[in-house]
Amino acid sequence: MLLSAQPNLMPWPAKFSPGQGNLPIGPTLRIAFRGHQETRLRDAAIRLVSRISRQCGIALRAEFVEQAQAALLIHCDRPREPIQQLGEDESYRLEVTAKQARLTAPNPLGILRGLETFLQLIETGSQKISVPAAVIEDKPRFPWRGLHMDVSRHWMPVEVVKRNIDGMAAVKLNVFHWHLSDDQGFRVESKRFPKLHQLGSDGLYYTQDQVRDVIAYARERGIRVVPEFDVPGHATSWLVGYPELASAPGPYEIERKWGVFDPTMDPTLESVYEFLDGFIGEMAALFPDHFFHIGGDEVKGAQWRNSRHIQAFMREHQLKDNRALQAYFNKRVQAIVTKHGKRMEGWDEILSPDLPKDIVIQSWQGQKSLAEAAQLGYSGILSSGYYLDHIEPASVLYMVDPLEKESAALSEQEKSRVLGGEVCMWAEYVSAENVDSRIWPRTAAIAERFWSPQEVKDVASMYKRLDAVSRSLDWLGLTHHSSYNAMLERLAAGNPVEPLRVLADVVQPAALGPRTRTHKYTQQTPLNRLVDAARPDSQVAREFAALVDKMDRVQIRAWLTRWRDNDAKLQALPAEDVPVSKDLSQLGAIGLQAMDYIERNQRPPKSWITEQRAFLENAKKLLAELFIAIVPSIQKLVDATLQPIRN
Amino acid sequence: MLLSAQPNLMPWPAKFSPGQGNLPIGPTLRIAFRGHQETRLRDAAIRLVSRISRQCGIALRAEFVEQAQAALLIHCDRPREPIQQLGEDESYRLEVTAKQARLTAPNPLGILRGLETFLQLIETGSQKISVPAAVIEDKPRFPWRGLHMDVSRHWMPVEVVKRNIDGMAAVKLNVFHWHLSDDQGFRVESKRFPKLHQLGSDGLYYTQDQVRDVIAYARERGIRVVPEFDVPGHATSWLVGYPELASAPGPYEIERKWGVFDPTMDPTLESVYEFLDGFIGEMAALFPDHFFHIGGDEVKGAQWRNSRHIQAFMREHQLKDNRALQAYFNKRVQAIVTKHGKRMEGWDEILSPDLPKDIVIQSWQGQKSLAEAAQLGYSGILSSGYYLDHIEPASVLYMVDPLEKESAALSEQEKSRVLGGEVCMWAEYVSAENVDSRIWPRTAAIAERFWSPQEVKDVASMYKRLDAVSRSLDWLGLTHHSSYNAMLERLAAGNPVEPLRVLADVVQPAALGPRTRTHKYTQQTPLNRLVDAARPDSQVAREFAALVDKMDRVQIRAWLTRWRDNDAKLQALPAEDVPVSKDLSQLGAIGLQAMDYIERNQRPPKSWITEQRAFLENAKKLLAELFIAIVPSIQKLVDATLQPIRN
Repeated sequence: MLLSAQPNLMPWPAKFSPGQGNLPIGPTLRIAFRGHQETRLRDAAIRLVSRISRQCGIALRAEFVEQAQAALLIHCDRPREPIQQLGEDESYRLEVTAKQARLTAPNPLGILRGLETFLQLIETGSQKISVPAAVIEDKPRFPWRGLHMDVSRHWMPVEVVKRNIDGMAAVKLNVFHWHLSDDQGFRVESKRFPKLHQLGSDGLYYTQDQVRDVIAYARERGIRVVPEFDVPGHATSWLVGYPELASAPGPYEIERKWGVFDPTMDPTLESVYEFLDGFIGEMAALFPDHFFHIGGDEVKGAQWRNSRHIQAFMREHQLKDNRALQAYFNKRVQAIVTKHGKRMEGWDEILSPDLPKDIVIQSWQGQKSLAEAAQLGYSGILSSGYYLDHIEPASVLYMVDPLEKESAALSEQEKSRVLGGEVCMWAEYVSAENVDSRIWPRTAAIAERFWSPQEVKDVASMYKRLDAVSRSLDWLGLTHHSSYNAMLERLAAGNPVEPLRVLADVVQPAALGPRTRTHKYTQQTPLNRLVDAARPDSQVAREFAALVDKMDRVQIRAWLTRWRDNDAKLQALPAEDVPVSKDLSQLGAIGLQAMDYIERNQRPPKSWITEQRAFLENAKKLLAELFIAIVPSIQKLVDATLQPIRN
Repeated sequence: MLLSAQPNLMPWPAKFSPGQGNLPIGPTLRIAFRGHQETRLRDAAIRLVSRISRQCGIALRAEFVEQAQAALLIHCDRPREPIQQLGEDESYRLEVTAKQARLTAPNPLGILRGLETFLQLIETGSQKISVPAAVIEDKPRFPWRGLHMDVSRHWMPVEVVKRNIDGMAAVKLNVFHWHLSDDQGFRVESKRFPKLHQLGSDGLYYTQDQVRDVIAYARERGIRVVPEFDVPGHATSWLVGYPELASAPGPYEIERKWGVFDPTMDPTLESVYEFLDGFIGEMAALFPDHFFHIGGDEVKGAQWRNSRHIQAFMREHQLKDNRALQAYFNKRVQAIVTKHGKRMEGWDEILSPDLPKDIVIQSWQGQKSLAEAAQLGYSGILSSGYYLDHIEPASVLYMVDPLEKESAALSEQEKSRVLGGEVCMWAEYVSAENVDSRIWPRTAAIAERFWSPQEVKDVASMYKRLDAVSRSLDWLGLTHHSSYNAMLERLAAGNPVEPLRVLADVVQPAALGPRTRTHKYTQQTPLNRLVDAARPDSQVAREFAALVDKMDRVQIRAWLTRWRDNDAKLQALPAEDVPVSKDLSQLGAIGLQAMDYIERNQRPPKSWITEQRAFLENAKKLLAELFIAIVPSIQKLVDATLQPIRN
């Protein structure tokens, strides 16, 4: 199928066959149900209609009719499980003809997935709205397709969570992993231990009613909610209210900086397990999902090493090192989690062979660690390679596969223990304002990796469809576009915003590591600079790279000229960004000089080459925590001047 | 005060004196209360802090402290009236020093107004946030400063209403006039006459709980809510459920077209007054405001003329024409409104000298009608000149004054009967998606007319401050910017949106009249075309006009080149907009030719002038319901080629 003729479906379905003709939509969408019926299906259909309305700018209305007159016929065999199960059937079949669309699925989960596909099929010309005929048979490759969101380091209000759950549903993700506690904040109301949220959150926490509301919201969209409460490390915020849980005497304060910190729970105290029993019991009742994430990562161990009674305990129990002590702790916690009816999940570090096989490992370390777990009989999901704060482009994230490298060599049975993966949104460098722009649209490409057949991996097709999904997420209420505009307006402070946008469109924020080293960040540092507005995967740089590849001289020159002349137009740019802007202008000028040589079919002097290469080398470096994304393309143009002279 | 040094306050306060230094803001805003205290004041302070956070991109937190440590000290003498009164004191005094801001007011209304001023004072540099020292003494010029919103012709969900109430509060408007019924839809739940909303609304109506919620929301922001139920004309939607109220036999259907229609209530039937007594009684209890708007405009009269029993009734009661019959009707309705404890309000047509003096006339006809009413002892407000669907630029709307022309000659006592004015947003050509872009930012300029001293009328200053207010309304949740972007993305349908934006930035939608004549519209016509995305008061055209006025050759050429080359870049433009794009390119080309003549100090040939003038004359015409806003500036350039040759 030609790329341009491909409908903008993402994730790409397991089987797709185009048909003949189009099903027209509007001004009313007549919908009929057959088989199992429930209010939530009707609600989902009403949401679909309202999303078509927004997407197409029409006032489409839903009408529920008998099946013969239906433009959209929905057939569902049976109800869903009362609590969404890992591996519950999500398959569906969607057949669209010029007369009717028929969506069938074993249960409402498949209907929800199929409705998203139906929406993505719609061709939004300005006036005539229609769905192209097609037959789609679809089901996911992996049963666990998650988005992890850290709400501790920066607070994310309920509306942020909900709109991201909408985004997840749009690309058929099915697990919302809610990272609810960390050193920098404890984010859930505990009625049993109220000092957790009262003293550990700056007042920024979800009430239990809000949690229930989010869970119901997610369930309506076919998404499980897995809570994470990180123990025994990353737990400073617990210790503000309950210092007696710690391995060293308090008092403790909410941590404001980023990193791995000393405060750790004391695994030697029975009172710690009594506390966790009470707390996990309360949370297990609040969160219906069958899984419960205990974190377990990055225990620093200094408090353990420095504690006389802990060292004595370790000797007494023949625990030879901190790792063994943590394994002891995990085993105790696992028993508590099981007692409250849940399966335990944790990061790589929790794996030790005496734990029961029903736990799930979330790997931040990679396919190797996942493969080892699978060989030992443990299930796991991949998160390594899907860290959004590493600011890789979608093309890189897209190619990471849970079943490649070490895990590719597993037996089929072992492979079945690789349940899928989770995208991770750590929140050191995101706020409610710009978090959507870090998550979207890149997460949609990863969602395709989790859902679509493994062989679907054409990057050009992915980007074409990703651009469409990105626009459509905007209609859904995600703010990755609108916040970008608003943040640039703020930075422009009343001056024309356009030259700032020209600059911002081709710079990318540095990743977590370099940012930490460049600037002294705390939780209170405003995230309102150019680096915070700039987006991870410059679309303009990507499009420019394509123009360079096909040597589209007119358009290349147009961009280069624009960049060269941009710095002169920028007023009141924050001081730290001035060198970035000057570099961009210089890159434009260098590119234009290169084009002159290329078009005159003339070799540049050696000194010119040397000079430009030195400049480009320098321009690759971080400035104001930003990278200029067009440097490789300018480098290509400079290199192209050295091509053999044509006659 | 230099324009550039002027803080971006809008409306401009009654008295403003700049001070020395700046009060720094953040990371915590310490607030203290003195005098009268209430929860709503505290809520207002918390909203202020969250708006500063959004506006500045920081995580500002409110802390309530003793007054000595307060950065913001709020002193309020006494509580507000239980129901906001017309003319209730809204004055305040705000004094900002480098150490503290003190906001004092007789009652919480003034505090609300003052908090908006405080917010507008904040200088949002990227990292350091502060408030410049100043002393402001402020109070409104007029007590009635309204925004009228038609929710009948196109449905406006509660969120649209609420965000516009936020916008109103930001610019110190104080009356939300809710146009709740018209031929095309009856928008409130009536428990007494449920067929009104059940059959008259397509299911698109506000429940009584939602109404109460909106009223509470408005009250928290110091805004009265005046409901309008238009009778006896503009009433088709009532008659769908209750045809027995009509002057001709039914059945009736919801009207889908725009205009003035025949269906009218029958003023001769006692049962009509019994119905209205029941209905107005129900609504008078739902809406606490002291005023009740009965519409009363544009009675077509055909049904009355064609009804034998109505004609007989008129003869019997010596009602010589339809106007007299309507006066009879109004008198009956006025008695009902009074019985339910309200003062009646209506459009010009309701005025007749035997009505009591406590009614209020809303004038769509002009200052003359207002002046006549005032001379007769009636109060009135001006809406003529403030119709947003006439698509006048802010500069024109801004200069319309309730006390000019005929009303300027009134005595002081008569003038005091001119209570203020109301901006009108009729909804034939707006949907929930683009309505904000029609209301904002232009309404802010009119709000200044209603609030600020009459002599505040510098248009350059107004536009500078309006641009700032417009950005700030974006932070508040208004969608006049974000919808524009989203609508252009939709129109671009996957192609680069930028050339479309270049075009859209310089076109303006036609006004109501020409649109009605150009295209057959109904309530179901999608409002998703370029004319619906385009905004009323092109900022680019305005800025370009300024460049032409100062003959900034470099920048003039940059714009002209961009426009000239834009058409070639536009892909998949809707067919109707192609000629507009071609015209824009030609305008760019003509401008560049003119610049060549001007810069070469050379006279163009006569034929060139003739040709260009003919083109420009043609380019002034409507195309695809759009005007190109730069035509006058191009005309200036062409004319400038005829200036005396310089030596």
